[in-house]
Order: sequence, then structure tokens, then C-alpha cells
Amino acid sequence: MLIGGIEAGGTKIVCAVGDRSGEVKAKKSISTRGPDETLQEVKAFFSDYKLEALGVGSFGPVNLDKSSDTYGTILNTPKTAWKHFDLLGRLQEDLQVPVYIDTDVNAACLAEYRHGAGRDVNSCLYITVGTGIGAGLVQNGCTFQGKSHPEMGHIIVPKHPDDSFAGICPYHGNCLEGMASGPAIEKRHGRKGHLLGDEKRVWEIEAHYLAHAIASYTLILSPERIILGGGVMKQKMLFPLIRQKVSGLMNDYVVMGDMNEFITAPQLDDEQGVKGAIALAVEV
Amino acid sequence: MLIGGIEAGGTKIVCAVGDRSGEVKAKKSISTRGPDETLQEVKAFFSDYKLEALGVGSFGPVNLDKSSDTYGTILNTPKTAWKHFDLLGRLQEDLQVPVYIDTDVNAACLAEYRHGAGRDVNSCLYITVGTGIGAGLVQNGCTFQGKSHPEMGHIIVPKHPDDSFAGICPYHGNCLEGMASGPAIEKRHGRKGHLLGDEKRVWEIEAHYLAHAIASYTLILSPERIILGGGVMKQKMLFPLIRQKVSGLMNDYVVMGDMNEFITAPQLDDEQGVKGAIALAVEV
Repeated sequence: MLIGGIEAGGTKIVCAVGDRSGEVKAKKSISTRGPDETLQEVKAFFSDYKLEALGVGSFGPVNLDKSSDTYGTILNTPKTAWKHFDLLGRLQEDLQVPVYIDTDVNAACLAEYRHGAGRDVNSCLYITVGTGIGAGLVQNGCTFQGKSHPEMGHIIVPKHPDDSFAGICPYHGNCLEGMASGPAIEKRHGRKGHLLGDEKRVWEIEAHYLAHAIASYTLILSPERIILGGGVMKQKMLFPLIRQKVSGLMNDYVVMGDMNEFITAPQLDDEQGVKGAIALAVEV
Repeated sequence: MLIGGIEAGGTKIVCAVGDRSGEVKAKKSISTRGPDETLQEVKAFFSDYKLEALGVGSFGPVNLDKSSDTYGTILNTPKTAWKHFDLLGRLQEDLQVPVYIDTDVNAACLAEYRHGAGRDVNSCLYITVGTGIGAGLVQNGCTFQGKSHPEMGHIIVPKHPDDSFAGICPYHGNCLEGMASGPAIEKRHGRKGHLLGDEKRVWEIEAHYLAHAIASYTLILSPERIILGGGVMKQKMLFPLIRQKVSGLMNDYVVMGDMNEFITAPQLDDEQGVKGAIALAVEV
């Protein structure tokens, strides 16, 4: 028997089947349109496999309060066709298996914790820096959720002294996502990050915002490891810059240990989303 | 049989005995000197009572890693006589009962969660704003700990535009504690907070820093309630100012509900420290 996994994003939905060890056997990427059209294609993909259970790492905001009547529904999203859509209920009906749902970032974090860069620690934070910025926490094997789920990418971070950019978050302007996401880099500098080469000022500013956020996450959550993924983090020169700035900000107040071990790259080659979705449905 | 509780602070140690319901039967405040002298007095206080167990809410940093050989010892503190002192071991030896230890703020949070302002919610954050600033989180009945324990009072918060004060934290200068603790208010304005009356600018600046921190805590931890205690929060005019600023910062990105219920005062009349210490030793 196989386990299904869905990484549900705003532009694409990746469906996969895998086994309990975390190995992915088959995978398909579907472009995200309205819920009906999209989920018909999802159902068609899974109809070839005998599934035991399904895990879903979903874009947010999603209702993760198990005591709520609307558990597993999408909340107040700009993707209006998905607003209030009962994603969990629909998948249970379509596939007739138990469905486990969490945020996309919690799922990705769980995959790295079980199979990747976090497999030797008891807690890790996975931060994705791409079109948006989000983070998921796994502690002692469990994903962290609060009253709703965290929205860590939207914290306000102090401005870099040489940065006059106003930020692009429609809600908060200059929050972390508004200042340091891929689209923020493009808007500030006029070109996408990967076309900006190693211009020192670009990555100095980017590292400033990410380091401030990481220092706050560390002081608030005290994770054993921080894993930085997403498109922007393909710029590997960011890692040493961020480590150096986080060290400076913490200033030995908390024992950080080896910064190369503390702040690290993912190990699952952009498969942490689906592997994490599968992991949500596998008890260990 | 009774439960003992110790609220161990840098200037005083409050010892109490109570029952499983959380009621305090007797209490004594002892000034904090060297560990030997202080703990002899602690032992003498408890020698009058038949204890079942003891809970300790300790100043930090304290080693809370149960798998560590030095679990329950005080870590790198400026109080040099207490550095590396085995607080848990000494209390177990002196009192011959099971001892449960956590941070002072986690203990206070647990007390408010069980008996006070958090007793109708599933998760709450207790923030103390006094000589220092710290916060503890309780979620589904459990206190939150990470690799070490959080140090939430030391996050960096953006400067208030009209504030030229450099901050007083010896590690971070202008972190939250450096900008908004009681001593920071006194240093900035030349008088203690309670002598500053209702000078608008004073509390506007104070609320700015606390609101930024609360917005970050909310986005990262997603607690159901935030309880603001400590000496500075005796200035009740801060509550509406903070609520208004947090609302503005969140800008409806996350559904906050009634802000008067979300951000609230403690209900345990400065007894949350000892009541929390007792609560640490009571399974519910």
C-alpha cells in the first residue's frame, strides 16, 4: 500500500505517491485553477494507486483547528475561488482514505526533520524564501500549530540603514516578506535575484532582513537547527552572510554552537513539499 | 499532603506551599544571596511542611534539557555565585521530594493558564515587563521549551521614530528589554515609570515597542491569548494603547477577534510566580 502526498500551492499542486520510508514513487505537477477543475485532475492522478492515507501540505491560511466545524477549509485567501473551500472534506470524499492536513511549510519542515537536514536534531525550523516567506517548526516529531497557524514571514524587521525600499506586502508593506521575498528583491533592484549576480549590496541587504528574522525566531522558538530553503536561497553566498549577521545580533547571549550546523541548506532537492505531505500521513 | 513552589528570582526567592487546587497556604520571601546561604533558608522554610513534590520557576538561563547531565543547573548568568550551580540537584537532596523545574515565565504562564486569565483558552503567552522582559508560552497544558529555552525579551524591535534612546541591554543595546524594560524607561526619561504620570510621549513610545514585539510573537506562536504582567504593566493606560497598535500592525492579515480578550491583564495578583511553580509539580 502507498501513501499519497499533496503539496498544494497557489500556482501549482504537486501530487505524489510514496512509501512509509519517504521514497517518492511517482509525482505529477498540476497547475492551480479553480478548486473543481484542479481537484478532478488530482483525483485522476491518484486513481491509479492503492492508497492507505493522504497527507496535504496546503497554502494558507487554512483552518487547522480540529475542534472547528470547518477544520481543513481554506480561509481568507486572495484566491477567491478557494475561499472557504473544504479542501480536507473534498479530498476525503474523492479518495476515500484518511486525510491529514497541515501548512505547506510545516510539511516541508517535517520532511527535512525525518529525512533531510534535520534528521539528527530534536527540533528544526524550515524557512522558505521565495515568492512568499513562510516558516514551519517541528519539535520532538510534531509540527507546531497555534490558535491558527503561524505566519512567520510577516514579522516586521528593522530597516537596513542603506535601504529606502518601501516593501511590497499588501498588508504590512515592510514586513519580512515585503522586504526580502523574491518579488521584493526584483522590485527593489529592477531584476530577478538570480540575474543580480554577486552584487554585494543586494545580498548584504537581503541577509540583513533574513538575519534579523532568524534572530527573532531563535529567541522566540529556540530551535536546534534552522533550514533555509526556497528559490532565493539558491543564492548560496547568502548562507555565510546570514550566519555572520545572526552571530552578531545574538552577541553570545544565547549559546549558538557551530553556526554552520545551526543555519543550513535543505537536503531534499525541492522534494521536501511532497515528502512532507506524505510524512504527515505516516506515524513514526 | 502539600505541594511546594519556589519562584527563584535574581533579587528574591519566594517560597510557598499550596494544595493541588492552586491555593497558597503559606509564603515567604527570601533575599537572593549566594546559593548556599539562600538555600539553607529555603530548606528551613519547607521543613515545617509535609511536601509531596516541589516545583521551581527559575531565573535563567537554566538548563532544561532532560537528556543533559547538567539538567536543572543554572547556566551563564551574571550572578557568578550561581553559575553552573545545580539548583535541581540541591533542592532534591535538601527536600527529598520530586522536583520539577522550568523558567519563571513559563511557570507564571502556567499559573494564569490553569487558574487565571488564560483558564478559558488552549494556549496563552504570558509576558512580564519589569526589571527585565521575558515571556512564557503554554499550549494545550504544556509549557513550551526549545533546544534551550526562549529568550523572547531580547528580540530586536524597530525604533520609534521620535526615540533617540540607545537602549540599555548589555548584549543587544536596543532589543526589546533594552528599550522597554522598567530600567530602560527610567534611563530614557530620568525617572521611574510610575513617577512619569500620564505623559503621553512616554507611554506612546513604550506601547510602540511592546506592540511590535507582541505582533511578532503572535505571527510566530499564534497564541489564543496574551497576558501582560510585571511592574511596568501596572500602568493600565498601556493596555488600550498596545491593543490599538497591535491591531494596526496586524492590519487584519490574521483574524484577531476581540482585542480586549486577546491582550489582557493577569488575574493572579502577583502570585502567578509561586502559583505557577506549584502548578509545575501538579499533573492535571
